[in-house]
Amino acid sequence: MTDALAVLPTPSLVLDEGRMLRNVDRLRRHLAGLGVAPRPHLKTVKSVEAARRVLADGTGPATVSTLREAEVFAAAGVRDILYGVGIAPQKLPRVLALRAAGCDLSLVLDSPAQAEAVAQASRRAGDAVPVLIEIDSDGHRSGLRPEDPAVVAIGRLLEEGGAALRGVVTHAGESYGATGAEALAAFAERERRAAVAAAEALRAAGLPCPVVSVGSTPTAHRARDLSGVTEVRAGVYVLFDLVMAGIGVCTLDDIALSVLTTVIGHQRERGWIVVDAGWMALSRDRGTAAQAVDQGYGVVCDAGGRVLDDLIVEAANQEHGIVAVRPGSRAALPDLAVGTRLRILPNHACATGAQFDAYAVLPADGTGTLAHWDRFRGW
Amino acid sequence: MTDALAVLPTPSLVLDEGRMLRNVDRLRRHLAGLGVAPRPHLKTVKSVEAARRVLADGTGPATVSTLREAEVFAAAGVRDILYGVGIAPQKLPRVLALRAAGCDLSLVLDSPAQAEAVAQASRRAGDAVPVLIEIDSDGHRSGLRPEDPAVVAIGRLLEEGGAALRGVVTHAGESYGATGAEALAAFAERERRAAVAAAEALRAAGLPCPVVSVGSTPTAHRARDLSGVTEVRAGVYVLFDLVMAGIGVCTLDDIALSVLTTVIGHQRERGWIVVDAGWMALSRDRGTAAQAVDQGYGVVCDAGGRVLDDLIVEAANQEHGIVAVRPGSRAALPDLAVGTRLRILPNHACATGAQFDAYAVLPADGTGTLAHWDRFRGW
Repeated sequence: MTDALAVLPTPSLVLDEGRMLRNVDRLRRHLAGLGVAPRPHLKTVKSVEAARRVLADGTGPATVSTLREAEVFAAAGVRDILYGVGIAPQKLPRVLALRAAGCDLSLVLDSPAQAEAVAQASRRAGDAVPVLIEIDSDGHRSGLRPEDPAVVAIGRLLEEGGAALRGVVTHAGESYGATGAEALAAFAERERRAAVAAAEALRAAGLPCPVVSVGSTPTAHRARDLSGVTEVRAGVYVLFDLVMAGIGVCTLDDIALSVLTTVIGHQRERGWIVVDAGWMALSRDRGTAAQAVDQGYGVVCDAGGRVLDDLIVEAANQEHGIVAVRPGSRAALPDLAVGTRLRILPNHACATGAQFDAYAVLPADGTGTLAHWDRFRGW
Repeated sequence: MTDALAVLPTPSLVLDEGRMLRNVDRLRRHLAGLGVAPRPHLKTVKSVEAARRVLADGTGPATVSTLREAEVFAAAGVRDILYGVGIAPQKLPRVLALRAAGCDLSLVLDSPAQAEAVAQASRRAGDAVPVLIEIDSDGHRSGLRPEDPAVVAIGRLLEEGGAALRGVVTHAGESYGATGAEALAAFAERERRAAVAAAEALRAAGLPCPVVSVGSTPTAHRARDLSGVTEVRAGVYVLFDLVMAGIGVCTLDDIALSVLTTVIGHQRERGWIVVDAGWMALSRDRGTAAQAVDQGYGVVCDAGGRVLDDLIVEAANQEHGIVAVRPGSRAALPDLAVGTRLRILPNHACATGAQFDAYAVLPADGTGTLAHWDRFRGW
């Protein structure tokens, strides 16, 4: 593998396809055991080639975080997409255009104002746009409490106004701050209870609720019972990262994403090795800063992907990374000459991936011939 | 201005050209008073259209942080470029290609290993590549102390090996953590003293040192004496940001960059307004976190650019921003309906700009007709 990477410019974004396929398969099997299918979130990979390997048959179901993602993946043949961010009324013309082109795009919202806008757009287009009401299961972000009478009121606004109530959706974003199987299983149960309670309230009011959608990478992997749930969303598990390793959802060996970099200098008396991956390549994400082990801007590996003992990117400027031994460690700083290539495991795969326009892919077939997969971005 | 922005999708990156031109002119006049010309750093704007307005006559001198920047700006007619990150030997073929195409590209380094690589490449190409030796003036990152005998040794390696010693370069990155005119003037003087001392050591050894290059946005604006200095580098001043406002180098009214966003929801009992600019649009940069006033992920303005009283982006997920009143403030949360447009002033212009592929430009001519300037990225 090292040989194939030797020809790349640095910094480059490296994806280990074998690890990615293993991650995708692991969650699919876990959820199958609980009787539920995944609806993978494609905001992490933002790549058509990667999505083809993440989705069961390449056509969906999928979740996205931007309409640009919906447009790119729909053009690539994905037919069942949930746009998981609360809809702004100004975005409805793009939603209707995607639906008119044959993509079953569904929306998320949590206010009567949004529901009225979607209902009005549905009537005008003669297309009952499907909507999931967002439920707040952990006080993290958006959504209504399941017992809030607005849940049923919005359901009625949608159904009577010409849109289609497809179900309820929740995401326990706070689970990223919990650690260990027990704590994460408890978050998974909070997601399930909140979503199922909201679905029951809608059904008790005579409204339809075919879909009960929950999920985040931590809760998806630690859920023990998904009774009443119809689908699970997760995204970062496809590539994994140091934040997920820090809360115990994966090991370093599962992380499929790394940034290839080159040593460009030393400050020997300070114990620093300077590399050409700064925060422009690694991203400014410091998601491990609040965890038990702060990984700085990333864990340093050799070019073959072997983790170097207690070596992290301690600080980052725009195009410079400062590699040093982790504070408190007795590990020796390795002697790495100018020109040496290293790979950095990222704190957050979504953030680091977004800094690049393509993946250099170490293929799962073991041939060692690099593949090139485009990434996209924007809204 | 509000009308022109009403047609943009959100999030979008907005550049106020009038503010930008004012920022560029202010520094040019300050440096002219000290008898020195600027060598603007184009890593902040990463745009050919913006660079044409930043550079005195559009052809240079300029500083860049990646070879991709050098290649794009050289293709657009910039003829004098300093690549300000320590050279990795593997990058020399691209350097030679740019020079062969007529761009006077100069390099930075701080080790004999790099100097030997550049000398060897110079001899093979029959092109004496110009080099500036990096000097460490504040312990921040790379470079040699001015009194280090390696400065002269490297100068000799370059001159005798076939490269060209063009001078010395330093950057007081630590100045970003200082506040107020006195502290920043002291950092400017540290930069000047270190660079001039290194230049004198080279000249005393019979080596040439025509260029003495210093600078950062904070020190460039607060320098009081630049005797012995021949050029000043600065980049973020073109657009400015909350970090620079926090250390007293600009006011909020100088910040030329903002992210246009739309209200997509509320959590009224928590005092939250949810917008469609998360960290994917604002970047993960939290540069004001360590300052006297923590601005969260940015300061909130109305669509016309007027700062709203004590309103900040308190938290951010990938595509969601949580707007709230600053902790400790008694300001009331404004009533902003779903669909309302806002503009967010960023912590760090370099990081936020990099999240977008283009600027929507509010033109300085006051016509209100938006211009579109492409941005680029990559290495």
